[in-house]
Amino acid sequence: MPQVSQRGLSLPASPIRKLVPFADDAKARGVKVYHLNIGQPDLPTPEKALDAVRSIDRTTLEYSPSQGYKGLREKFSSYYTRFGINVSPDEIIVTTGGSEALLATFLTCFDPGDEVIITEPGYANYISFAKAAGLTIRAVTSSIEDGFALPSAEDFEKAITPKTKAILICNPNNPTGYLYSAEELFRLRDIVRDHNLFLIADEVYREFVYTDEPYVSALTLFGLDENVIVVDSVSKRYSECGIRIGMVVTRNREVSATIMKFCQARLSPPLLGQIAAEASIEGTELYSKECFDEYKARRDFFIDGLNRIPGVHSPMPQGAFYTVASLPVENAEDFCKWLLTDFCWTENKEEEKEDNGIHFGDPIPGPEKSGPQYIGETVMMAPAAGFYATKGLGLNQVRMAYVLKKEDLARALKILEKALEAYNSRR
Amino acid sequence: MPQVSQRGLSLPASPIRKLVPFADDAKARGVKVYHLNIGQPDLPTPEKALDAVRSIDRTTLEYSPSQGYKGLREKFSSYYTRFGINVSPDEIIVTTGGSEALLATFLTCFDPGDEVIITEPGYANYISFAKAAGLTIRAVTSSIEDGFALPSAEDFEKAITPKTKAILICNPNNPTGYLYSAEELFRLRDIVRDHNLFLIADEVYREFVYTDEPYVSALTLFGLDENVIVVDSVSKRYSECGIRIGMVVTRNREVSATIMKFCQARLSPPLLGQIAAEASIEGTELYSKECFDEYKARRDFFIDGLNRIPGVHSPMPQGAFYTVASLPVENAEDFCKWLLTDFCWTENKEEEKEDNGIHFGDPIPGPEKSGPQYIGETVMMAPAAGFYATKGLGLNQVRMAYVLKKEDLARALKILEKALEAYNSRR
Repeated sequence: MPQVSQRGLSLPASPIRKLVPFADDAKARGVKVYHLNIGQPDLPTPEKALDAVRSIDRTTLEYSPSQGYKGLREKFSSYYTRFGINVSPDEIIVTTGGSEALLATFLTCFDPGDEVIITEPGYANYISFAKAAGLTIRAVTSSIEDGFALPSAEDFEKAITPKTKAILICNPNNPTGYLYSAEELFRLRDIVRDHNLFLIADEVYREFVYTDEPYVSALTLFGLDENVIVVDSVSKRYSECGIRIGMVVTRNREVSATIMKFCQARLSPPLLGQIAAEASIEGTELYSKECFDEYKARRDFFIDGLNRIPGVHSPMPQGAFYTVASLPVENAEDFCKWLLTDFCWTENKEEEKEDNGIHFGDPIPGPEKSGPQYIGETVMMAPAAGFYATKGLGLNQVRMAYVLKKEDLARALKILEKALEAYNSRR
Repeated sequence: MPQVSQRGLSLPASPIRKLVPFADDAKARGVKVYHLNIGQPDLPTPEKALDAVRSIDRTTLEYSPSQGYKGLREKFSSYYTRFGINVSPDEIIVTTGGSEALLATFLTCFDPGDEVIITEPGYANYISFAKAAGLTIRAVTSSIEDGFALPSAEDFEKAITPKTKAILICNPNNPTGYLYSAEELFRLRDIVRDHNLFLIADEVYREFVYTDEPYVSALTLFGLDENVIVVDSVSKRYSECGIRIGMVVTRNREVSATIMKFCQARLSPPLLGQIAAEASIEGTELYSKECFDEYKARRDFFIDGLNRIPGVHSPMPQGAFYTVASLPVENAEDFCKWLLTDFCWTENKEEEKEDNGIHFGDPIPGPEKSGPQYIGETVMMAPAAGFYATKGLGLNQVRMAYVLKKEDLARALKILEKALEAYNSRR
């Protein structure tokens, strides 16, 4: 039997999705699972986007231009001006989600063996795409004690080698929710310029900034026109993750020409997604405001609740809709798995002291009860170790996305508290 | 200024799209361009697919499962049984077009430096994806004199080295239209088995086979369950290239598990495309029959017409909707470019000997005439050299797609004939 590649074997299982089979089993048994593991917003897509899709009048769903429709790129260009970012439609390449934008950028900037510096914890799929493209990740560690602030210039300097081609940041940060300050970005600018590196900035959460500090896009850093490559996506902004529309933005013409060769090879970005995205950009200010207010309220509620659970610590995220929190457990992955395989909370039993026939810690019954009648509830979280490139870090941490409505977040918090009690008093 | 990667620089410009800027210029001058360069069918998408998109009742366009919706995979599974291919929904992974299926397969089967054997001329983007993934292509040449039949077993044996991991075929073939016979596929099966290789089969044109010979899918080759990986796509089958839905099909569980890790990293295939694809598969038999008849009639008409042009030779393609033809020119790329920059045919002048003010060979006027009033017509073709991995081959050949309606193909043939006369009598 022919063997798969070493590169393929080395790809990590997604920390967000690796526990999915256990969650599926739990659901099959009738357990309701609150998904804090994945950044899948429950907010509706703008009605304008849905309408645009429902009213397509094409007869052939044909290839679109490899760079994406010009009309869409023009709308993106005017979107950026709202944030003080001046880029022309020609400096924008539409991609199949931020994912393809990342992969195309990696293939364009790095040869196998080249190095990229990321802060850890970082978006787990950076590691996957880096392994796929054959580049090496050098991680600079940010710590929960500092609220995941940008590591010092010295830490970056120490990580730079002759093979370093780029620094990659995510701002606001997934998974930590940290927002880089202007001072931190100026520090990065100097490092990037001094060492002639690319600065790859993942800015997909640009609109979700909950502080009064100004948002500084890498595209506004003075003197870095040839260095900066921004990866962006409409997925979270308009709650349309499924349409797979992202983009790469750069003023470096050699970079964009090279990315375009990759984009020509894959022919075109999704046509229907482009139609939905184009309709989402204008006339949706009220929608965006409502989403923002909702996420901010959820953040305030959820982070406060987390920090009230004994032994749990979460910094206050300033942006995005994630947090990395430490739990009073040794191995968060084991705990996350246990939550799906062995734990099931029922409100009656805990709150009303009634016996509904299902006993805490009992073997969980089979799937005979399905539909809205759950036998109990649990929580799914992403173990944070998968967000660290350095083995052994973040073992007691989890990443959580606060993309559920407040009532569900309240339930999730309660379940988490009860589960920690039960987990730590096993045997 | 930081430099892009050597890999990025080595990516070839797409032979299908590299002349697009010249075509755009020609159109801006008021020239009508018949596109024989790209396999973008002009046939309508099935009405059922358009209806499914128009009637989506979701409120959130959310991520779909990384493997693709189960309902869609079940429909694909039953689609395959129509062709005598038994694969379960679990053996199917939905991808963003055949393009992503190819790239994911390359990343899964090959480490940088590993070798894949392809027949040339071959689909140009194999070369791009191979360069992107860092593998090396060893080409085995098929020749226009043999109608692009499968090269001999000796030719394949000669190309195999200790680094060879796979043989990649496209059947029916893009760009040649050649259909591999059962005998040829059995020959490949023996080679693949003897050398413990993967057999990657691109079967996106499965439904377009114009001979009475049975179609032999690689998935039906006995004893190759662990070796065969099929790349497939709904793009051409349902004239829905823009929805970007393809798939990888394999019974090798290690391969599918590894591809899934890549698929998890890119999160999910396009949601809206999956809705369109799922609606296209059943109840579209009449649609498929009509498409088939149309393409067969176009093939018969177009290939006959090509071979009537002095100096032009095209084998008769048995499948797909392309042909590679040789032209009476030394450098087909120069000719293809000249067609867009210097040539413009006007019927009146040639046929009716009337002077409409535009003289053959005159400098072409500006863009003042636009809309349906063209100043003349030309043809865009893909130079075939870009479909060969070996430099210097196919220089006098072009790839043409017969995806236009018959009247347009007739015009294109006439223009090609007149253009060859003019090109060969320059100066």
